[in-house]
Amino acid sequence: MAAPARIDAQLAFLNEADKLKDQLRATPILSNTRPENSAEHSWHIMLYALVLAEHANRPIRIDRVVKMLLLHDIVEIDAGDAPIHGDHDPAEQDAKEIAAANRIFGLLPDDQRDEFRSLWEEFEAAESDDAIFAKSIDRVQPVISNLETGGGSWIDYKVTAAQLEARVAGKVRRGAPAVWEALKVRIDAWFATRR
Amino acid sequence: MAAPARIDAQLAFLNEADKLKDQLRATPILSNTRPENSAEHSWHIMLYALVLAEHANRPIRIDRVVKMLLLHDIVEIDAGDAPIHGDHDPAEQDAKEIAAANRIFGLLPDDQRDEFRSLWEEFEAAESDDAIFAKSIDRVQPVISNLETGGGSWIDYKVTAAQLEARVAGKVRRGAPAVWEALKVRIDAWFATRR
Repeated sequence: MAAPARIDAQLAFLNEADKLKDQLRATPILSNTRPENSAEHSWHIMLYALVLAEHANRPIRIDRVVKMLLLHDIVEIDAGDAPIHGDHDPAEQDAKEIAAANRIFGLLPDDQRDEFRSLWEEFEAAESDDAIFAKSIDRVQPVISNLETGGGSWIDYKVTAAQLEARVAGKVRRGAPAVWEALKVRIDAWFATRR
Repeated sequence: MAAPARIDAQLAFLNEADKLKDQLRATPILSNTRPENSAEHSWHIMLYALVLAEHANRPIRIDRVVKMLLLHDIVEIDAGDAPIHGDHDPAEQDAKEIAAANRIFGLLPDDQRDEFRSLWEEFEAAESDDAIFAKSIDRVQPVISNLETGGGSWIDYKVTAAQLEARVAGKVRRGAPAVWEALKVRIDAWFATRR
């Protein structure tokens, strides 16, 4: 593919990606004025990963983690966000996300399509050290959002401390145990005020 | 600094950074439903940089470029966005941004404060190959936003093709000349419809 045709394909993908700014999440931004969208969420967790990288419990390559987080939510443009405390069907959501990856990464020149697709699949599989850390960080920021906004999606979905332990703690501990310890202190304090 | 105190400082910085989601820019998102904020803009231009890296006219380290773009707008939390087609005083804006960098990066542990500050200063100086490419990419996305939304901030600020040549073309050409060539075709077509 010649340079102008490559740039046309690349700009078409970048324009499509803009739609992630219209994809709303269950958690609010910290000013509590509106829901967070998936594009700004992606920016924020890349910053989380960079700042908290030293707390990864296995050696990671932060540049690969940051790239995974840059790409990780793009499939939501077609598949939507599946809130962790919601009741979506995981198999159905997976099928939607695979179709979305085919379509959206498919806008790129073949070499970039394959590279981005492969990074996204590595993130989803959560087996490599880089992906395990990236997934753990993806679970940290919504906890903070809820803590800082008086409960956020925990109130909407009536989430208990036991549910957080079951759905979130394991994933964060697996990649960044020290960060979970810091969150746990804050979570316990918050639920203590709700009794 | 012990691990728990480091995490406290790191989370304080990450919470402060959330305010970038409340910082609005002059350009709209492509659905043309609202102005873009600086957090989602930062995410998008990291994606631009990753996708368009091959068009850099000098060898770059894309991981450093991505980190610069991740951090480049954080000072806007205090200093605000200075639209390229607006009439702000550059010296006053610089002073505000330096004070903002002192305060916001100062929330981090000292080693991270120094590392992030140094990357931000490198970006602002626009002298290294990585920073030149990062700056060129930062100028590309608003052009696309305006093209795709019927003019966007070009209409608001009554921008001419000559002003784009003077204010934008040089910066984009310096880091990514092939990308400017692709934009130029689109820009010329857009201004031709306005005559």
